[in-house]
Amino acid sequence: MDKVNIQDKLSLIGEYWKPAVVGELNGQQVKLVKIQDEFTMHHHENEDELFMVIKGTLKMDYGDRIIEVNEGEFLIVPRGVKHKPMADSEVHLLLFEPGTTLNTGNVKNELTVDQPKKI
Amino acid sequence: MDKVNIQDKLSLIGEYWKPAVVGELNGQQVKLVKIQDEFTMHHHENEDELFMVIKGTLKMDYGDRIIEVNEGEFLIVPRGVKHKPMADSEVHLLLFEPGTTLNTGNVKNELTVDQPKKI
Repeated sequence: MDKVNIQDKLSLIGEYWKPAVVGELNGQQVKLVKIQDEFTMHHHENEDELFMVIKGTLKMDYGDRIIEVNEGEFLIVPRGVKHKPMADSEVHLLLFEPGTTLNTGNVKNELTVDQPKKI
Repeated sequence: MDKVNIQDKLSLIGEYWKPAVVGELNGQQVKLVKIQDEFTMHHHENEDELFMVIKGTLKMDYGDRIIEVNEGEFLIVPRGVKHKPMADSEVHLLLFEPGTTLNTGNVKNELTVDQPKKI
């Protein structure tokens, strides 16, 4: 019931591609993540995923096209749709997604974060 | 899968206290709303509700205390908790809540919006 300041929470995040949980509601989580360079192409079997850009320009690669998402914009990636987040320089994102969502979806690799920490 | 620009959508909203749907995922909706003055004290039986401030200062009255939420901050009101949004001057909010959420919760009055439009 207390407010959350997005910049304060972002200041606690040091590593790229490591989402941290900053809120929970209705079985969903609000996460913050800093990204740079390329992630893994993946999809989520059962989860739709919202990416809101707080800073920078996210490039979402759908395989057949790339969408640029700027500050003040968001993108919803439906379940089952392959996507690869990319960022030429540092990007700060807010994510809305079910608590069950694994960051690398159907892929397990060195970027997988099994238990995102709560900050 | 296409991006949504929050300011573009806000420019389509003319009336206060009339939330409009700008995204849907996992049974949840993303809404935008412009507010000013006072809403009705109410609660939601089964829905937690997230209020993110895009512009201005939201004052959330919980009855026994008031929390000021500024641009770049958000608040999660758990189900069952009475709350009354207030704004001394115009405030722009992004809401994240289940698709079943009625804006006035357990109260039905002239502020109730049964079917928020999609924009």
